[in-house]
Amino acid sequence: MPTNKQLLLVSRPEREAVAGNFKLVTTRTPELAAGQVLVRHHYLSLDPYMRGRMNDAKSYAPPQPLGQVMQGGTAGEIVESRNPKFAVGDKVVGLGGWQEYSVVDASQPGMLRKVDTTHVPLSYYLGAVGMPGVTAWYGLVKIIAPKEGETLTISAATGAVGSAFGALARARGCRVVGIAGGPEKCRYAVEELGFDACIDYRQHPDASSLGQALKEACPKGIDGHFENVGGYLLDAVLLRANAFARVALCGMIAGYDGQPLPMAQPSLILTNRMKVEGFIVSEHMEVWPEALKELGALVAAGKLRPRESIAQGIESAPAAFLGLLKGRNFGKQLVKLV
Amino acid sequence: MPTNKQLLLVSRPEREAVAGNFKLVTTRTPELAAGQVLVRHHYLSLDPYMRGRMNDAKSYAPPQPLGQVMQGGTAGEIVESRNPKFAVGDKVVGLGGWQEYSVVDASQPGMLRKVDTTHVPLSYYLGAVGMPGVTAWYGLVKIIAPKEGETLTISAATGAVGSAFGALARARGCRVVGIAGGPEKCRYAVEELGFDACIDYRQHPDASSLGQALKEACPKGIDGHFENVGGYLLDAVLLRANAFARVALCGMIAGYDGQPLPMAQPSLILTNRMKVEGFIVSEHMEVWPEALKELGALVAAGKLRPRESIAQGIESAPAAFLGLLKGRNFGKQLVKLV
Repeated sequence: MPTNKQLLLVSRPEREAVAGNFKLVTTRTPELAAGQVLVRHHYLSLDPYMRGRMNDAKSYAPPQPLGQVMQGGTAGEIVESRNPKFAVGDKVVGLGGWQEYSVVDASQPGMLRKVDTTHVPLSYYLGAVGMPGVTAWYGLVKIIAPKEGETLTISAATGAVGSAFGALARARGCRVVGIAGGPEKCRYAVEELGFDACIDYRQHPDASSLGQALKEACPKGIDGHFENVGGYLLDAVLLRANAFARVALCGMIAGYDGQPLPMAQPSLILTNRMKVEGFIVSEHMEVWPEALKELGALVAAGKLRPRESIAQGIESAPAAFLGLLKGRNFGKQLVKLV
Repeated sequence: MPTNKQLLLVSRPEREAVAGNFKLVTTRTPELAAGQVLVRHHYLSLDPYMRGRMNDAKSYAPPQPLGQVMQGGTAGEIVESRNPKFAVGDKVVGLGGWQEYSVVDASQPGMLRKVDTTHVPLSYYLGAVGMPGVTAWYGLVKIIAPKEGETLTISAATGAVGSAFGALARARGCRVVGIAGGPEKCRYAVEELGFDACIDYRQHPDASSLGQALKEACPKGIDGHFENVGGYLLDAVLLRANAFARVALCGMIAGYDGQPLPMAQPSLILTNRMKVEGFIVSEHMEVWPEALKELGALVAAGKLRPRESIAQGIESAPAAFLGLLKGRNFGKQLVKLV
């Protein structure tokens, strides 16, 4: 029974999340019951949605309970098994949370998924070929539903969702324009991720200025947009939207600390006959197999090889998470434990 | 060649539309060319969308040109015909504009439609069994797509669109709650139009107060909403929306004079996984036959008999239109010319 370091949520943010909201504890893993497996986590996934769960507010998911291990995706390896479907050494992804090990009742469907690391690195199953990748796929394919030649935009373009979105959009013959923070990320979006253009929103601190930059980068207007940030970024996109444009609303990280985040001109949704649709990828499990297949193929073909930001050791998780919320990561943010 | 009084748009509103934006002129109708008919208008339709056309702003339709007859729907009778498909005495609806007569090239498809006034009064073809009725039908059936037992809401509930929406929603087994201005309209909505409840927004001057009233009138939350007004009415609805709620965005009359009309909490679209979709009924001509058939049947069966506000004589059109924009009408606003 190995020792198991865990990070608990012990308080809710007043406004910004802070390191003191988390507490590191050390326990021992329990003995396994029949049907259970012990997973050693190689990677923890850090994702923006986790900030929402830290609040005690009505949302699509129940709040993260206080005093319990922070929930989250994990990729690891079976180190002990009392379940005939999983063998020691199997690579698996699941929802083990912010800890070094998890005990999983692997007989329950959907708790743990075996993955093949021949052509896809294990960590990618938390990013490009995992929940963030499927998130990009769902918003693109099911909400934006682009036609070849259309112009698409995405905020937080170099993150885990954005990098997958770029590859998926290009595979469909679309012009894809990113919005990201800082010249380095914008260069990366164009040179490595294959975006046709990328706008540094820090150079455009209001909707009118950003709208002008979008006009230049999207000379035919915007047909589809994937929103991760909200606020004036979304206002600027609405200013350049074409008739019948579709917006997939996936995140509004700009408002996670409780700032009011109004939409300046909702009448544009009407005058442009737009569709704005919010979604949560975990409510659309039916698309995962199809989405993961396409994402895995893009990775295997070398068309989707995003960078990762990797923090070392479980102790680094809170700081890495707070940095993610401020956009300090570069691509998918992970914590490496092994 | 009868004399023909016409109302022209001669200036654009600075902010509010005023009577001086229009000018009455008298002409004579021209001689008919082959294929043309002369229609004597019995009714002019006055509709909120016309306010948008008075502005010189980018929108879904080109602005109403200055110096020309105000465009709009008309119902009337053929008084002279050089087209074999139309006989003198035929009742027709078309887009004759704010004038007593119109000359129509009836060989062009879609310009003029013969209607049967056996079971449906002629004026209803401008309201319940016309463009407003089809507008309600499209938003309800194609965007909200309600299930039996769901709760639906609509602003401007007693107007031409709202009254049709109420009947269509009830026919589908939905609970339907109106929002209207003043106790008299709310009583009418419940007692005559068949709404399950109606909220007087004048008693609730902000989103929080109106949201509380909606909570009481919609104890199971709101599954679908049809928006004609915008502003804090829409904010209040978002506060009470259920997961997967759909909003058909049809009008934002609260902002037609150029007031900024932000949406306070667009993040609710995400957390409730909502769909907000704008539409213009004239872009969906394919649904008109099906919609008009259902609306005509509801009228014939006595299930849709909304009141009309009827102004007399073309000279009364500007004042009646300005009253409509302030909600002074009671049901469909018409101008009767014959």
